[in-house]
Amino acid sequence: MTRASDARFMALALSLGRRGLGQAWPNPAVGCVIVRDGWIVGRGWTQPGGRPHAERVALDQAGEAARGSDVFVTLEPCAHHGMTPPCANALVAAGVARVVVALGDPDPRVSGRGLKILREAGITVETGLMEDAARADQAGFLSRVERGRPLVTLKLATSVDGRIATGSGESQWITGPEARRVVHGMRARHDAVMVGGGTARADDPSLTVRGLGVMQQPVRVVVSRRADIPADGGLARTAREVPVWVCHDADAALPGVLADAGVDGLPCAVRGRNVEIGSVLSALAERGITRVFCEGGGSLAASLLQADVVDEMVAMTAGLALGAEGIPALGALEISKLAEAQRFELAELRPVGGDVMARWVACR
Amino acid sequence: MTRASDARFMALALSLGRRGLGQAWPNPAVGCVIVRDGWIVGRGWTQPGGRPHAERVALDQAGEAARGSDVFVTLEPCAHHGMTPPCANALVAAGVARVVVALGDPDPRVSGRGLKILREAGITVETGLMEDAARADQAGFLSRVERGRPLVTLKLATSVDGRIATGSGESQWITGPEARRVVHGMRARHDAVMVGGGTARADDPSLTVRGLGVMQQPVRVVVSRRADIPADGGLARTAREVPVWVCHDADAALPGVLADAGVDGLPCAVRGRNVEIGSVLSALAERGITRVFCEGGGSLAASLLQADVVDEMVAMTAGLALGAEGIPALGALEISKLAEAQRFELAELRPVGGDVMARWVACR
Repeated sequence: MTRASDARFMALALSLGRRGLGQAWPNPAVGCVIVRDGWIVGRGWTQPGGRPHAERVALDQAGEAARGSDVFVTLEPCAHHGMTPPCANALVAAGVARVVVALGDPDPRVSGRGLKILREAGITVETGLMEDAARADQAGFLSRVERGRPLVTLKLATSVDGRIATGSGESQWITGPEARRVVHGMRARHDAVMVGGGTARADDPSLTVRGLGVMQQPVRVVVSRRADIPADGGLARTAREVPVWVCHDADAALPGVLADAGVDGLPCAVRGRNVEIGSVLSALAERGITRVFCEGGGSLAASLLQADVVDEMVAMTAGLALGAEGIPALGALEISKLAEAQRFELAELRPVGGDVMARWVACR
Repeated sequence: MTRASDARFMALALSLGRRGLGQAWPNPAVGCVIVRDGWIVGRGWTQPGGRPHAERVALDQAGEAARGSDVFVTLEPCAHHGMTPPCANALVAAGVARVVVALGDPDPRVSGRGLKILREAGITVETGLMEDAARADQAGFLSRVERGRPLVTLKLATSVDGRIATGSGESQWITGPEARRVVHGMRARHDAVMVGGGTARADDPSLTVRGLGVMQQPVRVVVSRRADIPADGGLARTAREVPVWVCHDADAALPGVLADAGVDGLPCAVRGRNVEIGSVLSALAERGITRVFCEGGGSLAASLLQADVVDEMVAMTAGLALGAEGIPALGALEISKLAEAQRFELAELRPVGGDVMARWVACR
């Protein structure tokens, strides 16, 4: 029976779980709260790298207090023996009285089996509390399991008229420091940050999260058919500290200088003159990536939109106009009728410093 | 001595005054509230066409109750004899006790003289209450008096990537009905709506305010060097109902068919291949226009930005992307360095239907 305070504890578990976004892959970022006699005795979330799991962390914190407790967990506890014993069994062993789950696990190795283990041990199990919020938080994990590709967020940082640089290529800085900080926070909540080869060459970006104290940096992905990113650029030089994966034509090898620098090659299919987007995304999913944050350039962004795989667009807009000779945020989309354009729904809107942040979610 | 309730009455006067925006030109849109013993006995705002003035309307409503009253008026009462006796004298004649004014009148025929008339009659006069708000509302009137040009608002209705139509020219509808309704409201609060000749030819727009019951439609202004708008188009056909002014090359005459249809020609200077923007705006100001709302196209919008006369940009953004082959909202601006771009400050941000409305005000 659901109690009035349950939603409060599940909301806390969800907020703890979100701390693992971008950190927990290939595992889902889960949150767990253990309550005994109305007191919180354990809190946990999936740790960087995906383990220990949220339940394990919370159980360890609760210790003996877990006996007879109520457990709030944002995703069905795991039931399969991986590197650690399943969380469902750990909850049974701890003697908890009740487990409230927000969302069932779509992973075929789990789905329903975690709940079954709990029920067979005489534990009261309830599901579906704040399920929509949990589903939104797990969108990347669900996408990887159900669609075989990560969730794709496309960032556009533009002038009011949709330009990312002046005609002469000057782009630093269109948006202000507050907006850039928000972008760093978004990077941190994704498993990978992705750019096209042209952007990697032109901007020599670091693509790391700076100033936020993150424990695990997102993987840096460059989509470049000929894998021609500069060996002396910022990405290649730091590839041993933060991974750099280059998605390139499977018919060509990764240049030796890049391999020597620690850059990883992901061989992909090619369509026309570009690496095929579906192939890029399945290669990333195979490696465990659940959430990818694309920061341009215009050709890669256009390829993602054309492939209809953009789940979210984050538009940071600065209060200036750059005019038609400015560099557009998007390449050609081959849309001639408005009805052909993918429509997005506004999910969030707020001023950030002097700029505007709008988050748009694809209508599916 | 200012009283606690004064701000409340002035706020009401300001909100009444705003009802006249777009209706009162060439006069300022003023609001007036008359209070006797704490009761509101008269409310007025400048009527369509600019008269009667707000004070006259409020005094007529108050009648004998005006004697000994407090009067709240958003702009200094007029002191010059025009078609009607000056408001300052009318307030004296009505025997009011106190006049609170938000903003002094910059018009050289008035400035300070209205206040002087009141003071000399023994009326208590206070100024500066909510002056900033009054100044914002009077921005168009002040611009015409002080800069010899109307306030210019530029509207951009675009996709997330700043396009106003697909490559094939389809633009109906990028933004939704709620956004279009908001745009009609904005048209109504401007004295004139302005487009370029290309837009007039391509879209055959009516540029009228529909569905809001406005009493006086904004003047429709077309900037077209050769005055070549179609004589059988919607604008020319309705020119006797709602004025159409064509700003054209002073060296060429307005075509006879347009003149016959009731279209008015405003001869302007030409720079290069375009009508010179400064000349357009002073011609409009000379005719009494205080607020102009530009709805494109991209060349005219770019000319306004290049001339550095855009006071506000209103960006309506729809949740879709149209790509690089879409038609850009702005033509070339010849900006090569970011530092050359005029910066705008965010003044308002909100969702409108499924779209986003951002209002940006020029940093001067």
